Amino acid sequence: MADLEVSKIIDEICELSKNDAGEITRFPFSESWMKAQTYLKELFEKLGFDTYFDCAGNLHGRIGTQSDTIMTGSHADTVRNGGKYDGLYGVVAAALAVSKLYRKYGAPKKGLEVIAFSEEEGTRFPFNFWGSKTLIGDVEWDKVKCLTDKEGIRMVEALENQGFSYSNGCAKRDDIKAFVEIHIEQGGVLEAKNMEIGVVTGIVGYKKFNIEIFGEANHAGTTPMGFRKDAGFCAGVIISELIKRAREYGDPLVTTIGQIEFSPNLANVVPAYAQFSLDMRHTDGDILNRFQEEALEIVKKITSAEKVTYNFTTVFDDKPVYMDKDIMDIITKACENQGVKYMAIHSGAGHDSQILARIAPVGMIFVPSKNGVSHNPAEFTEPELLEKGVSILEEALHKLAY
Amino acid sequence: MADLEVSKIIDEICELSKNDAGEITRFPFSESWMKAQTYLKELFEKLGFDTYFDCAGNLHGRIGTQSDTIMTGSHADTVRNGGKYDGLYGVVAAALAVSKLYRKYGAPKKGLEVIAFSEEEGTRFPFNFWGSKTLIGDVEWDKVKCLTDKEGIRMVEALENQGFSYSNGCAKRDDIKAFVEIHIEQGGVLEAKNMEIGVVTGIVGYKKFNIEIFGEANHAGTTPMGFRKDAGFCAGVIISELIKRAREYGDPLVTTIGQIEFSPNLANVVPAYAQFSLDMRHTDGDILNRFQEEALEIVKKITSAEKVTYNFTTVFDDKPVYMDKDIMDIITKACENQGVKYMAIHSGAGHDSQILARIAPVGMIFVPSKNGVSHNPAEFTEPELLEKGVSILEEALHKLAY
Repeated sequence: MADLEVSKIIDEICELSKNDAGEITRFPFSESWMKAQTYLKELFEKLGFDTYFDCAGNLHGRIGTQSDTIMTGSHADTVRNGGKYDGLYGVVAAALAVSKLYRKYGAPKKGLEVIAFSEEEGTRFPFNFWGSKTLIGDVEWDKVKCLTDKEGIRMVEALENQGFSYSNGCAKRDDIKAFVEIHIEQGGVLEAKNMEIGVVTGIVGYKKFNIEIFGEANHAGTTPMGFRKDAGFCAGVIISELIKRAREYGDPLVTTIGQIEFSPNLANVVPAYAQFSLDMRHTDGDILNRFQEEALEIVKKITSAEKVTYNFTTVFDDKPVYMDKDIMDIITKACENQGVKYMAIHSGAGHDSQILARIAPVGMIFVPSKNGVSHNPAEFTEPELLEKGVSILEEALHKLAY
Repeated sequence: MADLEVSKIIDEICELSKNDAGEITRFPFSESWMKAQTYLKELFEKLGFDTYFDCAGNLHGRIGTQSDTIMTGSHADTVRNGGKYDGLYGVVAAALAVSKLYRKYGAPKKGLEVIAFSEEEGTRFPFNFWGSKTLIGDVEWDKVKCLTDKEGIRMVEALENQGFSYSNGCAKRDDIKAFVEIHIEQGGVLEAKNMEIGVVTGIVGYKKFNIEIFGEANHAGTTPMGFRKDAGFCAGVIISELIKRAREYGDPLVTTIGQIEFSPNLANVVPAYAQFSLDMRHTDGDILNRFQEEALEIVKKITSAEKVTYNFTTVFDDKPVYMDKDIMDIITKACENQGVKYMAIHSGAGHDSQILARIAPVGMIFVPSKNGVSHNPAEFTEPELLEKGVSILEEALHKLAY
């Protein structure tokens, strides 16, 4: 078999799985997503892997023994109208790296397994890292199965519609000895520093909150300013103060209010209700905790002054995760052996690796993102850089599994 | 025929026209709306009026000669999940007042006509005062007919679906010599001052703008704060500064940002786009113009500092309207004759009267709104106060038409 090109395989998968609007929107357990997972299964089989879907929709492709697994891969789902490389690159690169090892060296001493996690983005259901969490057995299934998407389809139905019958713990694995994930950077640091590979040191702590403000609907013309309980104004002041304060903290703190809703959301009615998301991330868990406290103080101060009430709800609170030093050394060594320009870098985005880190040593490899763009059709990485990533991953997996 | 009670008729109409959710949502040209208009037509006929629907969906009920019309009435459409009295009270009260005059004094010297305007709120199509504007012939029909509601139904289709075939100017009237509208206050001033009737002095100038901010979508985790063009943050700062500045102006300026949208509106993506409404009203047109200039300056200053671009679009710009002094005197005299507690008051809301004021002298009568609530199912006015309004309107119309 001739060498397969990672960028061409990615292009094929994105072409066959795009939606009617021509967009890359592979929500978990959708038809688009199933087309991609099925293609990957066929690819894995062509490469000689033993393949199976587990009960959570994760696709596995394996060579070597059945114990002591070295695992590699990423996720196959995407955000709405996303890019080609986020997640999928990590699956395809892993498959090609393992295939090369298999052809050069035969079966490894340990099990070597490629995984396409079924869900990571949390875009369809309000629950992310489904795929990797099922693998480590960290899912409160009784709660999660009732979550619905925007069409009202429950997670349990969506799984069943694609033939997956999940029950508590059915995808859990106890044999994973290491996990290595390759991913696009999704930021502009490697490109700006003219680097080819990022050796990831850790993943930022990542908190998400839901903030609600409860005011009072009133006629926009007949209610004097002093008689209002304007939930929308409160939201505006809070957004303004939160971002200004985050800027004062400086890098690497990032804070985003990306989603907002007013009710009744009519131009001529004072908003009775405002709801918005708050996303904050930092490599240092203590600093992140301090910023969370300040954010809550800002919400308290403004809502109290405006005589409205609030909810400040934690959606999730992921602590910072550090990559395994030995795996980082292996990746660094591979870069040096291959004469690749590399640097240490932290990840500002969450990845399946942070979930696997709870049960095994993990390592991550970044390739540059053109203009730092991600979660967007303009996502791009040069094919040569994609191939360099495969090559570094191949050498690292060789060290770990053979 | 026994005296009809205004509150009972309103209750009946709201009961028969409520939607499946039990809400009062009479969007123009909807089934709910048509039920109300049809009921009103039958009521007008029962009261002995000559009735017809014009080509714009306005319902007319007339007694007296065909020239020199004294017109009274209001609108039959509502906002989503609105109240019982906004608009509809003015139609039913007008019908009962004219009916009483007809029974007491027979046909008037002039034409006396009750109107139920088909559309005033602008809630379904982005165009308000449709009913009254068609009457004075001020509609750019070539533009307006293409406006669509949220379901994509064009205005021209919605009209045709109810059997109305509008063409430019087909509802225009040249015979209107005066217009008197009775309406709930929609604010809390009359109640706070323990008054029964408000003699309206004028309607505030009312400007509506659409503000758009164009930033750049970026990953919420991997994009340092200094590299962002956060349209959502800009919206927050602008909302915050606009409302704070409006408060500094003081009464009677009111400013509302009631509607907002982010795009892509995802918690983990820096907003590429923010759009929000800006509603501002004042009795003094010059002060309102000055505040508009300041609002634009605020938008310019913040978008320039954040290196994003903006659109600041005027949706409409309605100048303050003053009620006719002679009609105000007639209403005041009626209050004095009947021993009703009254005060002069301005209207913070827009009304069909402001459109009719362009072609004829107009007057408005307010009855109190319980707790100042309007555009809300809690909208309420005591039945006795509703009847007092009818009685004042009757006396005023007698002076004008007989």
